Amino acid sequence: MKNFVLYNPTKLIFGAGQIAALAREIPQGAKVLMTYGGGSIKANGVYEQVKKALEGHTVLEFGGIEPNPCYETLMNAVALARSEKVDFLLAVGGGSTLDGTKFISAAIGFEGDPWEILTGARPKTAVPLASVMTLPATGSEMNSGAVISRKSTLEKFAFSTPLVFPRFSVVDPEVTYSLPPRQIANGVVDAFVHVLEQYLTYPADAPIQDRFAEGILQTLLEVGPRTLADPKDYNARSNMVFSATMALNGLIGVGVPQDWMTHMIGHELTILHGLDHAQTLAIVLPNLLWVQRESKREKLLQYGERIWGIREGSEAQRIEQAIIKTRAFFESMGNPTHLSDYSLGDDCFDEIVRRFKGRNMLPCGEKRDLDEAKLRQILAMCR
Amino acid sequence: MKNFVLYNPTKLIFGAGQIAALAREIPQGAKVLMTYGGGSIKANGVYEQVKKALEGHTVLEFGGIEPNPCYETLMNAVALARSEKVDFLLAVGGGSTLDGTKFISAAIGFEGDPWEILTGARPKTAVPLASVMTLPATGSEMNSGAVISRKSTLEKFAFSTPLVFPRFSVVDPEVTYSLPPRQIANGVVDAFVHVLEQYLTYPADAPIQDRFAEGILQTLLEVGPRTLADPKDYNARSNMVFSATMALNGLIGVGVPQDWMTHMIGHELTILHGLDHAQTLAIVLPNLLWVQRESKREKLLQYGERIWGIREGSEAQRIEQAIIKTRAFFESMGNPTHLSDYSLGDDCFDEIVRRFKGRNMLPCGEKRDLDEAKLRQILAMCR
Repeated sequence: MKNFVLYNPTKLIFGAGQIAALAREIPQGAKVLMTYGGGSIKANGVYEQVKKALEGHTVLEFGGIEPNPCYETLMNAVALARSEKVDFLLAVGGGSTLDGTKFISAAIGFEGDPWEILTGARPKTAVPLASVMTLPATGSEMNSGAVISRKSTLEKFAFSTPLVFPRFSVVDPEVTYSLPPRQIANGVVDAFVHVLEQYLTYPADAPIQDRFAEGILQTLLEVGPRTLADPKDYNARSNMVFSATMALNGLIGVGVPQDWMTHMIGHELTILHGLDHAQTLAIVLPNLLWVQRESKREKLLQYGERIWGIREGSEAQRIEQAIIKTRAFFESMGNPTHLSDYSLGDDCFDEIVRRFKGRNMLPCGEKRDLDEAKLRQILAMCR
Repeated sequence: MKNFVLYNPTKLIFGAGQIAALAREIPQGAKVLMTYGGGSIKANGVYEQVKKALEGHTVLEFGGIEPNPCYETLMNAVALARSEKVDFLLAVGGGSTLDGTKFISAAIGFEGDPWEILTGARPKTAVPLASVMTLPATGSEMNSGAVISRKSTLEKFAFSTPLVFPRFSVVDPEVTYSLPPRQIANGVVDAFVHVLEQYLTYPADAPIQDRFAEGILQTLLEVGPRTLADPKDYNARSNMVFSATMALNGLIGVGVPQDWMTHMIGHELTILHGLDHAQTLAIVLPNLLWVQRESKREKLLQYGERIWGIREGSEAQRIEQAIIKTRAFFESMGNPTHLSDYSLGDDCFDEIVRRFKGRNMLPCGEKRDLDEAKLRQILAMCR
């Protein structure tokens, strides 16, 4: 096990009816900017619950944060927060609203062009933020990272700083009942791939981290189909929601190598083609695992045995089966795994390779052995 | 799954050579009281490492915190901290030093008799504390609880408040190499029982918590014997140490019922007989599981299958096997499971029952079905 720091100060307030807890968690006298997305919180009753819990506080609102939140949109919120001297941000929505609000938080006090936060600058301050999470997927409710897009340049970048850990996050599984099946399918796939990015690398003498990762995967396999079939089954939904939080709150990734190249490729497919984030992961991951099957051999065998019960056949056959079953799971959840399923072709492949090279990202992966040839091979298999 | 709050702001700094990290973690200008136990840190080099990392800070020292830290001793530290206006506490040692320091932290600003902190009063302030943990067992390095004894009344009580979460804890597995085998055996048993207190209750539709708990148990079974046999095997030792932290940092207990009656009975055996904490757990737990085998039936079967691979036989046979194997594991680690192994008799049983009744603790357990008759039955089996 490698040396590590495990630090996560977010208070996770989990369960049915917990939005009312907001009232005691928001600092007295705070001037709150409530951020949200396209307005679904007004249709499902969350907006009303939040407003009621915030009674007695000064609350401004900023709606319209889009999926894959845009720098251009967020800078409008930054301007509002600066001019109104907001001192607390409350994101109400899914991962995009939350990621966008993390950027707002860090940008408000940033000297210089806030886009630099996405290209390596370290913000020195951040306005305290919290969340009411309404879409289980990204884990943003309990981590310090965010992914932001820029329309003008078609770029999608991540940043992370402990300053933007939510002070608290309210996660009420019942408010997710009204989400469309596509969002739930995406959430399950997103959480599953978050785990695999931290687990399917190479052995690092970290049995606790391995078993925690496997526990989340097994749970997602069990409850994913159940919660898709019966959205109001609280047991299935609450465990799916908790899985999504635990998949990316830093816990399973301590002391072990991590990959994240499925995400890096997927981000390009989202920004260039407009696919949902999880759709890109379902397309890329099985092919990346195939191309990297030698590099990831030991963990692929462990994954096949412990998650899929694959114990028969040669090593090559067991690895192939593990990848086939992973792809089949994504498809069974309603996430096709080829670009052609979305009527998309290979016209962006050269641009993706150009970007990886331009950013000096190659070779990449946990062993730095994913080079241009392998990247092109993965992309070709995504067709 | 029940509603829950998951909150743990302690920064865990884990790995070989990490004590040097102290230098950047202690607040600038802090007046530090360094607390420790019987002086083993001076023999194993930890004292020197810590003092070096603290160069440039004002550091006072308070040594002599004993195993099962005593109120009487700790109040001397409180007096010192008050008169010297200490504003940061650094516990260097094992769970007893750390627990004692948590009490000191809460007692310094407490108005009234600080013993009330142990009998239900809620402290309103606490002096910030951190730790360098040298003995893997209690999990105190990453939780907000402490257990304190009082010599004058032969009482042992716990308290918990988020105010005493360590700001950070440095955990370097290498500094535990010099611990005697008995301490390591105790640590493995302590961590194992911490998990079982939160796991062996009744099903609560919490598969993530179950699997995390099982992951820690499986890891302890693997690395416990290895680290006892070869104390300097870093992989085994680091995973044993990490298991102990994860066993009682609040994670696996969220949203599920908890028992803790093995601990409650064990505390009495420690204070009345002077047994090590883990020795008492090894004695009590198998008997409590036997007496509560109907109440804990479903989880005992799950435990037997997933941890011990027991799939043959009737339910009663499988449960019996699971308990037998648990007892055998404790004994294989060097922890006898009967009072007679320590030449102790049954003369304290009436006093224990009297105390449980006097504190209105009966019936107890996760279903409130452990009554006086069952308590006497458990004690009788401990002989």
